[in-house]
Amino acid sequence: MNPIQYHKELEGKIEVISRAKIKTKEDLSLAYTPGVAEPCKEIAEDKSKVYDYTRKGNLVLVVTDGSAVLGLGNIGPEASLPVMEGKCVLLKEFAGVDAFPIALDTQDEDEIIDTVARIAPMFGGINLEDISAPRCFSIEKKLKERLDIPVFHDDQHGTAIVVLAGLYNALKLADKKLEEVKIVLSGAGAAGIAIGKLLESAGAKNILYLDSKGVVCGDRKDLTTEKQEIAEHTACPKCGISLSCAIQNADVFIGVSKAGLLTSEMVMTMAKKSIIFAMANPTPEIMPDEAKRGGAFVIATGRSDFANQINNVLAFPGIFRGLLDNRLPQVTEKMKLDVARALADFVGEPCVEKIIPSPFDKGVVEVVAEAVKNA
Amino acid sequence: MNPIQYHKELEGKIEVISRAKIKTKEDLSLAYTPGVAEPCKEIAEDKSKVYDYTRKGNLVLVVTDGSAVLGLGNIGPEASLPVMEGKCVLLKEFAGVDAFPIALDTQDEDEIIDTVARIAPMFGGINLEDISAPRCFSIEKKLKERLDIPVFHDDQHGTAIVVLAGLYNALKLADKKLEEVKIVLSGAGAAGIAIGKLLESAGAKNILYLDSKGVVCGDRKDLTTEKQEIAEHTACPKCGISLSCAIQNADVFIGVSKAGLLTSEMVMTMAKKSIIFAMANPTPEIMPDEAKRGGAFVIATGRSDFANQINNVLAFPGIFRGLLDNRLPQVTEKMKLDVARALADFVGEPCVEKIIPSPFDKGVVEVVAEAVKNA
Repeated sequence: MNPIQYHKELEGKIEVISRAKIKTKEDLSLAYTPGVAEPCKEIAEDKSKVYDYTRKGNLVLVVTDGSAVLGLGNIGPEASLPVMEGKCVLLKEFAGVDAFPIALDTQDEDEIIDTVARIAPMFGGINLEDISAPRCFSIEKKLKERLDIPVFHDDQHGTAIVVLAGLYNALKLADKKLEEVKIVLSGAGAAGIAIGKLLESAGAKNILYLDSKGVVCGDRKDLTTEKQEIAEHTACPKCGISLSCAIQNADVFIGVSKAGLLTSEMVMTMAKKSIIFAMANPTPEIMPDEAKRGGAFVIATGRSDFANQINNVLAFPGIFRGLLDNRLPQVTEKMKLDVARALADFVGEPCVEKIIPSPFDKGVVEVVAEAVKNA
Repeated sequence: MNPIQYHKELEGKIEVISRAKIKTKEDLSLAYTPGVAEPCKEIAEDKSKVYDYTRKGNLVLVVTDGSAVLGLGNIGPEASLPVMEGKCVLLKEFAGVDAFPIALDTQDEDEIIDTVARIAPMFGGINLEDISAPRCFSIEKKLKERLDIPVFHDDQHGTAIVVLAGLYNALKLADKKLEEVKIVLSGAGAAGIAIGKLLESAGAKNILYLDSKGVVCGDRKDLTTEKQEIAEHTACPKCGISLSCAIQNADVFIGVSKAGLLTSEMVMTMAKKSIIFAMANPTPEIMPDEAKRGGAFVIATGRSDFANQINNVLAFPGIFRGLLDNRLPQVTEKMKLDVARALADFVGEPCVEKIIPSPFDKGVVEVVAEAVKNA
């Protein structure tokens, strides 16, 4: 089916329904005045009771400013709404989490923070979505400090978790250790930086980050604050800062950057049993058949039509399920690591064509939610 | 049933569901990436298409700052949420309108305006709820100027419309003319001032407004801007500014004030065939039996357990139905007058025990929506 026709016929991918049926005057007096005054009074006495008498405890805000939507870029709030509704659909369909989409008519960092904080009382959790880097980093940080409900920027952490999960299994198959491999990470936006940080948390010690200009390293003068931090502990490779230089002898290539950046010739210069996660959307940094020609051992992309789809939907529904069910106030680093491990282990016997579960595998959400709880 | 138990068992009176079913990879690629990029691109080209591809066209924001909730006063955002969810329930159950509750964690006027304007892109209309006077007046005015979707403060206009509808029929029964009657309006908050304005729009020429200090009139030095405007064309009664003085020879008493203010002795001093709308909640300004002892001809209250319940739910669901179906950008004065007339006419043959429809009468919503459309 054509996606335009599909969206037109659906008349919205989400719907707000009433759980209260109003057929009689008594129904009316329970759901609304005068009966509704009773729960109001109890919540006024003890705020935490809002979880008992409203939908808050199962409700997540999916919020964007429309500045970095899919691969489409800064398309503004209205045009981002089909994606936000889609995200809400995934939370509900995969994990039974109610989610409501809001697209903000501002791209000012402080205004975004203030607005989200002010509308937070109805929600049990907040999913930041498609907000461009570097603003997304400070927006998430400040909202986490300001609010007592979990705040999660899925483009960063959801992606990072699923990449780490896939990498655990790919390294197992290649019989290599995360602590020892050389990793080239192409794309130093929200996802790239989050992936790098989580891999470091998990033990990775040798990561070269690349942005559109090349390796993010000490000699560069054109770096944002986040990139400067990375550059501080990265020496520029002797052969230059280009990808073709950086990739030599690398064990792992991780791309969240641009279509076609990586060639089979470059893959040939990588270490043996090379691992390629080419996740640019919709066209990856290298197509799987070309990567194979270069000798790649494990190949993953962001696409559903190839093996090993690195897809956030493996993580965020179960993460919010776990956060809400246990009323956890924050997403911690340990949670992210544990979820990645749980997703990797869920595969059972990984092989090069299957390093990661499918989102339709029964039990994925439960395993992720359990990992969140136990962390 | 006990309202506390009722709310606990429901686990929220609203729910966000998915209209898109996600069972296969193809479903996923239509509702989310890559298919979702198509409607996004079309909306980026032409903003109005957001109505075709998302839920916006059937979705209303119910928003409060928790400053004037029911008769409970300033109980804050969390405690107001059961009422906001209740309002959303009524919109859905009576008129099929999706509505989502937001309680704001601010009571600053400018912050409220900015926040509501920034989250507006997802919504086809905005219902302001339980925001205290006089802030509610300027908040509504400024949001109307700023947004291209209808903004409606139901506590003001919903109440005013239903009062006018009831008054049309009550005056018909008493064989009196709106242009000629003396009206005493007790309560000069959001509802009181809106009722007065709408009655004046409809032709009323002789209204005395009272606040907690007495008649709002020229000699008073303690008045807000809104009340000063009223006082400019109101002379203080010679006998004083108390209710017992103001009520003498009045044809109509309208109360949106406080329990027990009006006595049967006062009613005895009113004109013949007096009309009493005592709408303080939950206890009216005068109980119906006492009003009758004073000789009242028609009596209405805000309660469902007496005849003639003046209930906003007669108006706002149909109003939003009409606004959304015809994508109208604003609520106009003519709309409010026409809806009041349509509600009055809907009764058919009014009698003193039935001057207003019941919200459960079939066809009320349609008649109201039609009046909105035709205005």
